[in-house]
Amino acid sequence: MFKQVIVVRSDLDIGKGKLAAQVAHASVEAVLKCLKEKKEILDRWLSEGAKKIVLKVNNLDELLEIYEAAKREGIVTALIKDAGLTQLPPGTITCIALGPDYEEKIDKITKDLKLL
Amino acid sequence: MFKQVIVVRSDLDIGKGKLAAQVAHASVEAVLKCLKEKKEILDRWLSEGAKKIVLKVNNLDELLEIYEAAKREGIVTALIKDAGLTQLPPGTITCIALGPDYEEKIDKITKDLKLL
Repeated sequence: MFKQVIVVRSDLDIGKGKLAAQVAHASVEAVLKCLKEKKEILDRWLSEGAKKIVLKVNNLDELLEIYEAAKREGIVTALIKDAGLTQLPPGTITCIALGPDYEEKIDKITKDLKLL
Repeated sequence: MFKQVIVVRSDLDIGKGKLAAQVAHASVEAVLKCLKEKKEILDRWLSEGAKKIVLKVNNLDELLEIYEAAKREGIVTALIKDAGLTQLPPGTITCIALGPDYEEKIDKITKDLKLL
């Protein structure tokens, strides 16, 4: 079983549409990376229905901790900085995507996080 | 200039995390379709920063109207049905993605819609 997890900062004051766009940025970027680096895992994840889960952290430090842990495990990652044209200062890091990859591999890193 | 628009039903009672996951489903599915059918447009959209905008409609009828109009224009589309394991009845259509494609081509169809 495969999944992709997107982890979002809950300390940013952004609307739900903008938030959804940031999550989509992270998801797409990680999918395209996975297409290049782990094509077989991408195909298996897609054939299972492309499971995506959105989780939250309290702040940037917690987000970066998860990001580094995922990179150490060899999971495909994407880190999203907002262009800052609306709602946020330019360069604000908003969310990360982990995977798609094996569920258990991602769960090891994200098991203590709550659903957004 | 290129963009992708994701259009979401505003009459569904779902949390913002679940909503963001639906938007990401739509975005990824349309991107992978675009990779097969309009690779050059995908590359140009990515090189411009992969602009994504999330808009809303009031109900399913309005969503399907936009969807059909986009298909008639030859825009890449994705229509997302929720598996219905949580929060929604199985098979509920939640959102669509249009593009990536030329901004003006998409704007022609979505110009009257509001930001989510």
